[in-house]
Amino acid sequence: MPHVFLEYTSNLTDFEPDSALLRINHVLVASGQFAAESAIKSRATRVESFRVGTGLNVRGFVHVKLALLSGRSAQVKAQLSESLLAGLQERGNWPASVEVQLSVELVDLDRESYGEITL
Amino acid sequence: MPHVFLEYTSNLTDFEPDSALLRINHVLVASGQFAAESAIKSRATRVESFRVGTGLNVRGFVHVKLALLSGRSAQVKAQLSESLLAGLQERGNWPASVEVQLSVELVDLDRESYGEITL
Amino acid sequence: MPHVFLEYTSNLTDFEPDSALLRINHVLVASGQFAAESAIKSRATRVESFRVGTGLNVRGFVHVKLALLSGRSAQVKAQLSESLLAGLQERGNWPASVEVQLSVELVDLDRESYGEITL
Repeated sequence: MPHVFLEYTSNLTDFEPDSALLRINHVLVASGQFAAESAIKSRATRVESFRVGTGLNVRGFVHVKLALLSGRSAQVKAQLSESLLAGLQERGNWPASVEVQLSVELVDLDRESYGEITL
Repeated sequence: MPHVFLEYTSNLTDFEPDSALLRINHVLVASGQFAAESAIKSRATRVESFRVGTGLNVRGFVHVKLALLSGRSAQVKAQLSESLLAGLQERGNWPASVEVQLSVELVDLDRESYGEITL
Repeated sequence: MPHVFLEYTSNLTDFEPDSALLRINHVLVASGQFAAESAIKSRATRVESFRVGTGLNVRGFVHVKLALLSGRSAQVKAQLSESLLAGLQERGNWPASVEVQLSVELVDLDRESYGEITL
């Protein structure tokens, strides 16, 4: 806990997933919501097959899902979401030829059934 | 909003993800639930490593997750799910040699912490 | 129903996803919670781009998400989570040079809008 799932479409050729993940993890550490930096587990996936809407425009997206243990307030979650969206936007070398949508989603990990061990 | 996540197993060799996504997006536009067609963000992933059950039969699956902002009625969600399942079934050139399972899942995006911008 | 989503980082070079999925499916069958073994749909994804925390240590993770129809008790879900975590731990040929985190998450599939057909 927490888990970050980032996806980016393959037409964002200048997007650097490793750099974006490092930035995201720093934003999460800076939020003060997570006791151990080592608990932040983030991954990025390049999306090769995608479709935005039904039009012919050239469109792409970056989507981040942050999953964190249930119990945090709506205010804390909204702040985390805003920080991630801002961090993501600053990160990118966004192309002029693609309409890019950035989105951030927060989900709760059910605290009673979530399990984690470090080997 | 909304987001569509489609997965298909690699033994469905005739499955065309781009065609399926376009069909799904058209189904979502036709539902009248989403104001802007450009907001529909869909992606498809080919699953190379999978296991259906524990038997030796040749099995595969296509799974669609639709994530949409919270607040829609159970009836609207059930209708969306049915439409997507029907659209998916019609879409496929389903193999006779594989037992194929199709499934559709709806999840709510927490409205208070969901963030989205278009660059 | 149910669905299993397993992810493992690419620095766990000895991790065998097919073997892990088979083990997981057997654990789920043995739990007695699912009527038909054929309904268990599991997939594994190798994560190439990831970041654990912000430090320089060599870290990796395996994360399992189990999605099952809503309505099961917190106790049943906690037991399933524990069984999966134990099964996963036994499965691995864990490297000494990587700090590996294993985690299991349970999510409910909304029963009213979940749809599934077998072709």
